[in-house]
Amino acid sequence: MADTRFDVVGMGNAMVDVIAHADEAFLVAYGLTKGAMTLIDAGRAEELYALMPPAVEVSGGSAGNTMAALASLGGRGAYIGKVNGDQLGQVFRHDIRAAGVAFDVPSARSGSPTGRCLIVVTPDAQRTMQTFLGAGTELEPEDVEPELIAGSQVTYMEGYLWDPPGAKQAFLKSARIAHNAGRKVSISLSDPFCVERHREEFLDLVEHHVDILFANEHEIMSLYRTRTFDEALQHVRSKCEVAALTRSEKGSVVVAGDEVHVIDAEPVAHVVDSTGAGDAYAAGFLYGLTRGMPLAACGRVGGIAAAEVISHVGARPEEPLAELVRRKLG
Amino acid sequence: MADTRFDVVGMGNAMVDVIAHADEAFLVAYGLTKGAMTLIDAGRAEELYALMPPAVEVSGGSAGNTMAALASLGGRGAYIGKVNGDQLGQVFRHDIRAAGVAFDVPSARSGSPTGRCLIVVTPDAQRTMQTFLGAGTELEPEDVEPELIAGSQVTYMEGYLWDPPGAKQAFLKSARIAHNAGRKVSISLSDPFCVERHREEFLDLVEHHVDILFANEHEIMSLYRTRTFDEALQHVRSKCEVAALTRSEKGSVVVAGDEVHVIDAEPVAHVVDSTGAGDAYAAGFLYGLTRGMPLAACGRVGGIAAAEVISHVGARPEEPLAELVRRKLG
Repeated sequence: MADTRFDVVGMGNAMVDVIAHADEAFLVAYGLTKGAMTLIDAGRAEELYALMPPAVEVSGGSAGNTMAALASLGGRGAYIGKVNGDQLGQVFRHDIRAAGVAFDVPSARSGSPTGRCLIVVTPDAQRTMQTFLGAGTELEPEDVEPELIAGSQVTYMEGYLWDPPGAKQAFLKSARIAHNAGRKVSISLSDPFCVERHREEFLDLVEHHVDILFANEHEIMSLYRTRTFDEALQHVRSKCEVAALTRSEKGSVVVAGDEVHVIDAEPVAHVVDSTGAGDAYAAGFLYGLTRGMPLAACGRVGGIAAAEVISHVGARPEEPLAELVRRKLG
Repeated sequence: MADTRFDVVGMGNAMVDVIAHADEAFLVAYGLTKGAMTLIDAGRAEELYALMPPAVEVSGGSAGNTMAALASLGGRGAYIGKVNGDQLGQVFRHDIRAAGVAFDVPSARSGSPTGRCLIVVTPDAQRTMQTFLGAGTELEPEDVEPELIAGSQVTYMEGYLWDPPGAKQAFLKSARIAHNAGRKVSISLSDPFCVERHREEFLDLVEHHVDILFANEHEIMSLYRTRTFDEALQHVRSKCEVAALTRSEKGSVVVAGDEVHVIDAEPVAHVVDSTGAGDAYAAGFLYGLTRGMPLAACGRVGGIAAAEVISHVGARPEEPLAELVRRKLG
């Protein structure tokens, strides 16, 4: 739309990923829940880091990854999240801006360092994440600029924001502003354990505050406590305007009222690191949606973005996604 | 040798690499000398970083990379270098220790942050480096533990140490201790521009203090100001016990008195990032040498290590080199 400054404004826990490769034995030895995101405190973060193999540092954060991918697709994005002014905070700010995303939230003034996510990638390309939220916990309603929200077609939030205490207020404020301005509100459920932690609130959110929902099959089944994907699908149909449900190599299913699209996954030569697959899918989908593409095409663009991100280590695209989409969609 | 704690102790400017991909136009626009290592101050580092695309942070430093590769080969290594206690310093310390290298030099107490090397990788896989030495400049003779040097078969130093003012004294002290203990001293010339900056001192070093010399063809030709590689080769033959001269895809030439070996490069499917090729070669060569392998085999192990490192982004090995060498040498 010509009257918006941004296609999407993303809100999330800002953090830098610390990525290392290790085998299953490492997860077992240190009691890590494979494939999940577990919250840890500063002490445990230090302890675990000392045990980890040599690592690579790269900007992350679920919604941060989504916004970087949206910009790579050619979308206009902004980000709301909280870092410290420390070296890792400078890295986060540099990377998201260099990706082409507007990020003007001031750094936290307290002593809490920039959040980090210790990621162990096992040989099967699965990621196991231990998150120290750090300065991310200081995101609050004051960090939300009303003009930014009202000037964006979609306000997108990661479910992880329900973990720190103040951030959910920032989101609810944003959702109110967005709807009053006639804009859309979107959320990703983030992680099945995150859904466990906040199920009642998420059910309410999805039914009353969210227009566009992203979830993978585990998350949506956890939300509605169903045994099959199809049962969860039937539940969600009536609850929000659009739901895009991802299923890894099975592709995705997009539901919007009577419309249902079953979209195949994009072929990937070699899955290296699944970190960020869902983040990239959401970026592709929202890119298509904000350009008025049909829902099936939105899902296809999501799949193309996800395929690029899982082909290498790190959760943000390395190849310009706009070109990739042009090549694939012709 | 059974009477040593370490095979090699490496000394260098400790730093974290900040690696981004960009095309030649980026180098031209900001006046960067392609393929070279240029020293920059804190202000220029900040200015350039702001201009760089999204990046990945990974521990680096020439001798640091060599020690990490040596450990990956199964060698016993220690490192001497200076970081700050800041986040990037913690990253450097974590990574080198997690690689299996002993690193006990205390952090700098001054306010100078940990050094960093801004690396732009162009589509031809060449790296262009802008180095802010930071805390690295505070390495001094007091940081050298005599028992560490005397207990290592080889003391290895990067030529870059001649750039900060105090570090060369640390090296000369180490060389004296090593020779008094009957150990060997080794140096890598690092970079043709570094050779330009310190030619007279390097000529004296190679002739009077160094037993094992590493240089690539550009560096050795710069040292002796020759027009051809062969002329430089004839110059260096009489100057030190062993010289290992690398020539990228042409392989390497190893000279030791009357012995001369011309070793082919290891085939590489796809060169992604040449950063660290020379560092890894030195690691492989020294690993072989400290195990009493014949010189030709030492060169071969160097080539195998270099081939692994240039097959991915980042200057330290991702695959365990010991297994790779076992597979290749049978």
